[in-house]
Amino acid sequence: MTTLEKYLPALVWLKDYRVADLKHDSVASLVFTIMVIPQSLAYAMLAGLPAITGLYASILPSVLYSLFGTSRTLAVGPVALTSVMTASAVLPFAVSGSEHYASIAILLAFMSGVFLLVLSFLRLGFLTNLLSHPVISGFISASALLIIIGQIKYFLGVESQGDTLIPLMTSLYAHADHTHLPTLLLSIFCIASLLLIKRYFGHFLTFIGLPTATVKLFEKSGPVVVVVVTTLIVAILSLDQMGVAVIGTVPTTPPTINLDLISWQMARDLLPSAFLITIVGFIGSVSVAQSYAAKRRQDIDPNQELVGLGLANIGSALSGAFPVTGGFSRTVLNADCGSKSPMTGIITAFLILLTLLFLTPVFYYLPTTILAAIISISMSKLISVADLKELWQFSKKEACLLIVTFCVVMFEGMETGLIVGVVLSILFFLWHTSHPHIAIVGRVPGTEHYRNVQRFEVETHSKVLTVRIDENLFFANARVFEEKLQSLVSQNKDLQHLVLMCTAVNMIDASALQSLEKVVVRLADAGVKVHLSEVKGPVMDKLIGSILLTNLSGKVFLTQHQAITELTQQ
Amino acid sequence: MTTLEKYLPALVWLKDYRVADLKHDSVASLVFTIMVIPQSLAYAMLAGLPAITGLYASILPSVLYSLFGTSRTLAVGPVALTSVMTASAVLPFAVSGSEHYASIAILLAFMSGVFLLVLSFLRLGFLTNLLSHPVISGFISASALLIIIGQIKYFLGVESQGDTLIPLMTSLYAHADHTHLPTLLLSIFCIASLLLIKRYFGHFLTFIGLPTATVKLFEKSGPVVVVVVTTLIVAILSLDQMGVAVIGTVPTTPPTINLDLISWQMARDLLPSAFLITIVGFIGSVSVAQSYAAKRRQDIDPNQELVGLGLANIGSALSGAFPVTGGFSRTVLNADCGSKSPMTGIITAFLILLTLLFLTPVFYYLPTTILAAIISISMSKLISVADLKELWQFSKKEACLLIVTFCVVMFEGMETGLIVGVVLSILFFLWHTSHPHIAIVGRVPGTEHYRNVQRFEVETHSKVLTVRIDENLFFANARVFEEKLQSLVSQNKDLQHLVLMCTAVNMIDASALQSLEKVVVRLADAGVKVHLSEVKGPVMDKLIGSILLTNLSGKVFLTQHQAITELTQQ
Repeated sequence: MTTLEKYLPALVWLKDYRVADLKHDSVASLVFTIMVIPQSLAYAMLAGLPAITGLYASILPSVLYSLFGTSRTLAVGPVALTSVMTASAVLPFAVSGSEHYASIAILLAFMSGVFLLVLSFLRLGFLTNLLSHPVISGFISASALLIIIGQIKYFLGVESQGDTLIPLMTSLYAHADHTHLPTLLLSIFCIASLLLIKRYFGHFLTFIGLPTATVKLFEKSGPVVVVVVTTLIVAILSLDQMGVAVIGTVPTTPPTINLDLISWQMARDLLPSAFLITIVGFIGSVSVAQSYAAKRRQDIDPNQELVGLGLANIGSALSGAFPVTGGFSRTVLNADCGSKSPMTGIITAFLILLTLLFLTPVFYYLPTTILAAIISISMSKLISVADLKELWQFSKKEACLLIVTFCVVMFEGMETGLIVGVVLSILFFLWHTSHPHIAIVGRVPGTEHYRNVQRFEVETHSKVLTVRIDENLFFANARVFEEKLQSLVSQNKDLQHLVLMCTAVNMIDASALQSLEKVVVRLADAGVKVHLSEVKGPVMDKLIGSILLTNLSGKVFLTQHQAITELTQQ
Repeated sequence: MTTLEKYLPALVWLKDYRVADLKHDSVASLVFTIMVIPQSLAYAMLAGLPAITGLYASILPSVLYSLFGTSRTLAVGPVALTSVMTASAVLPFAVSGSEHYASIAILLAFMSGVFLLVLSFLRLGFLTNLLSHPVISGFISASALLIIIGQIKYFLGVESQGDTLIPLMTSLYAHADHTHLPTLLLSIFCIASLLLIKRYFGHFLTFIGLPTATVKLFEKSGPVVVVVVTTLIVAILSLDQMGVAVIGTVPTTPPTINLDLISWQMARDLLPSAFLITIVGFIGSVSVAQSYAAKRRQDIDPNQELVGLGLANIGSALSGAFPVTGGFSRTVLNADCGSKSPMTGIITAFLILLTLLFLTPVFYYLPTTILAAIISISMSKLISVADLKELWQFSKKEACLLIVTFCVVMFEGMETGLIVGVVLSILFFLWHTSHPHIAIVGRVPGTEHYRNVQRFEVETHSKVLTVRIDENLFFANARVFEEKLQSLVSQNKDLQHLVLMCTAVNMIDASALQSLEKVVVRLADAGVKVHLSEVKGPVMDKLIGSILLTNLSGKVFLTQHQAITELTQQ
């Protein structure tokens, strides 16, 4: 792979791209475009922006990711989680629907893009690993539930505010009296149709005699049919005149950022939100990309993914839209439509552009309630109780972490929940490593293998004690090891040699070095020599020339068996 | 040890306490009291409180620690670092010298005491381990330097504010014109005398013919002589009339907390400062106690230390004083005076009480400049460049951590510096564990020992690949391992068996379990069986019944050697 190919991964797949591929991808893109439009509109609404902004967010970002991203399947555009995080980040600063609100959302997309590029440049992608499985699971379940509750106002046709459980419910309760009956009936129709069509559309298509390939291509397009039918119903019955909310007239130009409405101070205040949107979006995107790459035996490069998604977000800001990323449902749709290369991203962008230029009047009668129904149904799949059950069996502590994250998200909001989750998982890990396990080991008879005296029948010696250190040696446990080793030696009065078996020591830092050196010197005073065995290469490299080796009273043995053989023969 | 003895450690040493011990300890206490009084006054001044408060802080806390603490040597009272941290915590809320200021300092001592007891109750003492050696070293050096710079105003006899480098220097520069010449001359005299007497007082005592034992007992009391001489000079020349600052009349009652001047909101705002003072004080105290315990082959119990110091701080609050802890220089002095049991702490408290009751007029002419000189000289020993040099050789990264902590303390203050240091050291550690080392290993010929193919001449097999995982498996590196294992397998086309050698795996969490399970299933699809070898007891306990073992395509081997023997024979 050339350097240029590394930075512009599109060159790799463009090299082998044929006319036949283009034909195939065009069909896939056409189907995908039709299916993805309602989703994009819905997620823009979730972000508190005019639904049409969702289409702006699907053009330039998609093209830029196709050129700079490394996944062959990922579809980039508005995504539920980042959209709702955008809404909760912008709401404290502006009223939804205002020019001010749109400007801040654009700023957020821009900041998110810059963050992704900076993370790539500084190779800080590892920060995203700090979100552990329980935290992500609790976060997604709670967010999905909050999103669904947030859609109820569209189903009832009432005004309502709030972005955490209690304000949401209080506000809904206060407004429930004003429920708009036509809207509620339409909502029930939408939800029921979506659920039914999802289940039976494939059967129906087969029943009317379509060939299997066509059925496979279109069986997931059921929602589009419901959208079209609902829009027709609204148009024919003029339900908009009765107060059913519709998309209405769409402005012909995209929103642009009004620099007078934003300030440095605002950018500073948005920093934490922008950072969290970035991280959540990136993790979601990479995990989808990775699972498809594994299925198709392809590779993705997380660092280049940061670049691809970063440029996509800057593209979104330039289009007057909001933060985007690679989405799960979007990508599944893309793969199901038969996408084989990132070219579909480019063709889809072109088709959505055409839609924006010529087809916006079609959306006039599209009711917001169908979008809310689409959102709710797709979110309901993300709430996973099975995950909690499985985790509970494996580790109660991690299951509690999931529950805490879930609750904090529900009651305090998504950002706080995420931060609390990350801090707690780091603290749990540090707690674990700072309460390290040490084992006195002996030889498994007839082998050169040494195991814990408490779990195996092994051979030991009264004058030689071998302690296996079951943790990295670093600041969080340095003092604990110091205490443990000293109390161990004080219990064995005959002791002449203490062998530290270092199979599990992968790193040693200055704090631990200092503690160990103290132990070695103190034990030497007490007539006990300290030896090391099975020190790993990278650790040994660091120890050479350090005060620990200079002051070591004993030897460093390559293997534990050599240590015991030599020390017991003396 | 009985339960009562565990909670009231004084019972242990009181059991064997003889009259002869009491005689010995009384002499030691008398000498110690004389020597520790100037220090106590100085540190109260550092805390921004009337110097005499330092004596109040030395009575009840000392008695309570003697009864509830576990160190036989530790001397508890005002300490430089916590005193200056107290000053910088209280200054934003009140003017030094006001009743308001004293009330907040008392509140701080109380909060610190409660924190220590809570830490003990929740067994959260491990949190103090999060301060790594480089962070502590950088923090102490910078704080000591800031303290010294903060004393310059006393030497010049000017007013000046600020608690970080730039405000301190600007303020000093602005006021330098008003330097008070008599004060400056007296300061130079104090510093010079202290330095000279420290060096030559022992020789002088020997020279005038005192017996060696007496010389040993008194050679460290040089500063007391300088204090007495300076006070006499001030009194005889009436320097206080010329504007030299002296302690003056001491109020006969201790300060008490004025509850009208404090509020819940203030307590909340003080929380972070109180917590940091607690942690810093505790770490300093425990490390001094531990080094003396090791020297004297005694034990200390960190959890009971939390109780002892917690009660000492509550005692300090009840005495109208400020946060206290076990101090380094205080303890050295105590040991040098010949203290052999905590009884010295009790006797000293009694002697200081007598001083407060009857001897305060003696302090009238004591100039503040001598206290500033004592502080500066004792702080200068804490600035350690050697530490940085040694660290630099061992690890550039940790040396940078020291430098960053030092600089942040100098420019942004002690608390920010400490927090930045801790966060960076945790991030460094997480960065390290999330960039784990894995090694392909082979058999060292003629042994049952398996080592890295890149460092040793070892035997390997084309169809069996053994990978030693050199890190705990947890959320921060789960995805990285997933990627590494997959790319490794994709490079070895003949592969039939992948053995994961788990000698260095001490824990596995749900995130890692999920990743590993994914790898196992994917590799099974590709015709590669995954085996585990040398899984440790605690890890195996967690794996039993998990999805990983259920879906494992291969076996779990007790030893790596058994795995290779069996798999290569097939």
